[in-house]
Amino acid sequence: MVSAQQNPAEMSGGESREEILQAAAELFMEFGYAATSIDAVAQRLGATKGRIYHHYRSKADLFFDVQVAAMTRLTDQIEPIARSSGDAVERLSAMALRHTQILLKELPMQKVAVQGLERHLLEASAAAKRLRSVVKMRDDYEQMFVEVIDDGIRAGSFVDLPARLLSKPFFGALNWATVWYSQRRLQSEAAIDDIAHTLAAYALRGLLKDSNDEAARATPLFQYHLG
Amino acid sequence: MVSAQQNPAEMSGGESREEILQAAAELFMEFGYAATSIDAVAQRLGATKGRIYHHYRSKADLFFDVQVAAMTRLTDQIEPIARSSGDAVERLSAMALRHTQILLKELPMQKVAVQGLERHLLEASAAAKRLRSVVKMRDDYEQMFVEVIDDGIRAGSFVDLPARLLSKPFFGALNWATVWYSQRRLQSEAAIDDIAHTLAAYALRGLLKDSNDEAARATPLFQYHLG
Repeated sequence: MVSAQQNPAEMSGGESREEILQAAAELFMEFGYAATSIDAVAQRLGATKGRIYHHYRSKADLFFDVQVAAMTRLTDQIEPIARSSGDAVERLSAMALRHTQILLKELPMQKVAVQGLERHLLEASAAAKRLRSVVKMRDDYEQMFVEVIDDGIRAGSFVDLPARLLSKPFFGALNWATVWYSQRRLQSEAAIDDIAHTLAAYALRGLLKDSNDEAARATPLFQYHLG
Repeated sequence: MVSAQQNPAEMSGGESREEILQAAAELFMEFGYAATSIDAVAQRLGATKGRIYHHYRSKADLFFDVQVAAMTRLTDQIEPIARSSGDAVERLSAMALRHTQILLKELPMQKVAVQGLERHLLEASAAAKRLRSVVKMRDDYEQMFVEVIDDGIRAGSFVDLPARLLSKPFFGALNWATVWYSQRRLQSEAAIDDIAHTLAAYALRGLLKDSNDEAARATPLFQYHLG
């Protein structure tokens, strides 16, 4: 279980932060927050409780860090696409596809992040402040999509409704995968990619004023099922 | 809190089953299953614990009945539309709209039902059998949509992909409202209806092969924002 890490402290003894986050995300996903304990995370890793406490003081810490890690991965991948040149349809189709690929490939972590914070946790004062910072990360992330949707509305490609309202079913079409999709060990990369393309193309079609929009037809996303 | 019910036993003493389900659904939604107790339900209703136990032996019973009640309402409303005459686009647009209106208007109960059963509950042996029957209700409900989507694919209105796969982002666009939407007390019926139309029209557009599909343009759903 001990992987080769750059940090020597992690090589000699403890589980890496990455492994801990992954195991914790799996347990939060399977059993919920209330039913998950630091003990259970240690057990899943075949480690002692102490090794987990070396990195995290509490379950709330761990829950917080899973969400930060998940949001950071999404943002790191999506931000360069959002800021690239290219028209709105092209950028949004690439963003939708990448977002969905990450969701499907990193399901446990993304499920915890995407389905939002359980409200009773937010209200527990100790965790409240840090969890608000995760909410902020997610708001900023969603805002990148809202702005590109707005670009597409102004360009006349997308239906003329408020961009923020349109972003709701758009994310729904994609993020609902965290409810229905279950990772099967033997599902091939190609099969996962096929699902990601189908979901992202659906989400784009929902926005398009005219499904024969030239820019849309030219994207790799819409070429996918034709190619 | 005691409402006039037809059942005299309920008039003289207890809260109605309906009121109990509503209060329980609100608590499950706000605090999750683990953090909700029969005691809390009684408190919210200003009733004694005994009155709740008169109807429900356990929290699992109550959780089960909330889901059955929610699925029954959806099925009762949607089944006649699914079985009506009319082409697939017309039926599916009416089904999507009604489904979304019920979701938004009965948020606590529908949220508990729609977001699915927490897996650890299903695995608890005592509740497993009955919860499987709720899963069956939801499968049957979703199957009605899958069949109408399939009709639309055969008729050439919807994109040519497996109907079951297409039903996933379709439900996602609608059901994600149980994640982002929060009932505000003063939100008007008209405002709720506006959101329901926007979500349902988005979900339909995601399926359409050609957004200028004549049958789609003729539905009240697509006329809504034009009218």
